[in-house]
Amino acid sequence: MQKSVVIGISGGSGSGKTTVAENLLKLIGDDHILLIKQDYYYKANDHLSLEERSKLNYDCPTAFDTELLIEQIQHLRNGQTIEQPQYDFTMHNRKKERMIVEPRHIILLEGILILHDPTLRDLLDIKVFVDAESDIRLLRRVLRDSQERGRTLESITEQYLGTVRPMYEKYIHPTKKYADIIIPKGGFNQVAIDILVAKIKCYLDELNMIEA
Amino acid sequence: MQKSVVIGISGGSGSGKTTVAENLLKLIGDDHILLIKQDYYYKANDHLSLEERSKLNYDCPTAFDTELLIEQIQHLRNGQTIEQPQYDFTMHNRKKERMIVEPRHIILLEGILILHDPTLRDLLDIKVFVDAESDIRLLRRVLRDSQERGRTLESITEQYLGTVRPMYEKYIHPTKKYADIIIPKGGFNQVAIDILVAKIKCYLDELNMIEA
Repeated sequence: MQKSVVIGISGGSGSGKTTVAENLLKLIGDDHILLIKQDYYYKANDHLSLEERSKLNYDCPTAFDTELLIEQIQHLRNGQTIEQPQYDFTMHNRKKERMIVEPRHIILLEGILILHDPTLRDLLDIKVFVDAESDIRLLRRVLRDSQERGRTLESITEQYLGTVRPMYEKYIHPTKKYADIIIPKGGFNQVAIDILVAKIKCYLDELNMIEA
Repeated sequence: MQKSVVIGISGGSGSGKTTVAENLLKLIGDDHILLIKQDYYYKANDHLSLEERSKLNYDCPTAFDTELLIEQIQHLRNGQTIEQPQYDFTMHNRKKERMIVEPRHIILLEGILILHDPTLRDLLDIKVFVDAESDIRLLRRVLRDSQERGRTLESITEQYLGTVRPMYEKYIHPTKKYADIIIPKGGFNQVAIDILVAKIKCYLDELNMIEA
């Protein structure tokens, strides 16, 4: 008996997927929604040095511990608590501590490659792909990396051409075909967000009715 | 005071837009939804012979009486009855008789070019683009035209390469960028239809509350 509904929100870096997920969280409230980022499930790489870890490709499917993610999404769907891994982005490694996370009726799973693995895909009740033109995605990434992360244009360019762009073409864009709905103009698309809110409220009514 | 909500459903020939619109009508019921097809608003061409009319390009914006469509959508939004034009597809001309159509809370406007005109676009509360790969769209069109309309493969090919395909590229595909949501796998996408049904039910609740 499925106790939670899982909504997957995918899209490239800079597509606006995080904005969509955070808007849904704000509009519905975190009593009802649990936001899980695929980034939490980057693999532990204790066997590598910091320098080696910093050079890994983090935009491809093998960077993620998808087996653990699938297991934990299954637990949450069944109404079970999980011990969620935490990721240290400065150390490029999984933290030692896990975090106890209680299930909620609506699980939002957000990340660049959540539509890639067929077993994970089958766990998603709604598959959303947030889309934006490549120049807009690049622009958002440049602004974010320079303003929030203090990175140089040279380093942003190198990473963009070296991994972000080729990995988008190779792995992320091909998963768009699995989406149930595509949201263009990502974070600024209030109409699409309102439509998802309406569906989530219907789910909450149904799940509350089953419990009552 | 807006009394009806207008949902535009666009997409190329064979995309599945008609299936999406008809599914919504079936699931919500025609007490609440009025389906309007852009095809009803093909221009009257009394000044041309049947042969001349049969050779016109029906896949471009100027084929439609968009002024009348805008006026009637405005009336319906305001809760007013319209005298809808009717189109005779065998005579390639507008019929003499109009049909009295009462407003309903939800107006579904379906057609290949409803996202083209900016004034019409502004009247749409939700803009949906139903999408499918070009080979799938072609395949559906071939099946429909040969099975339902008894047309030869030669005639289908001529029309497809002569107008359908170039007009899709020139006029229809560019309007996809105006969509609030894009529905891939058109007619067979139950998840997307369920999401739209949830939103329509929310609209109906709100409109009924205003009236009560």
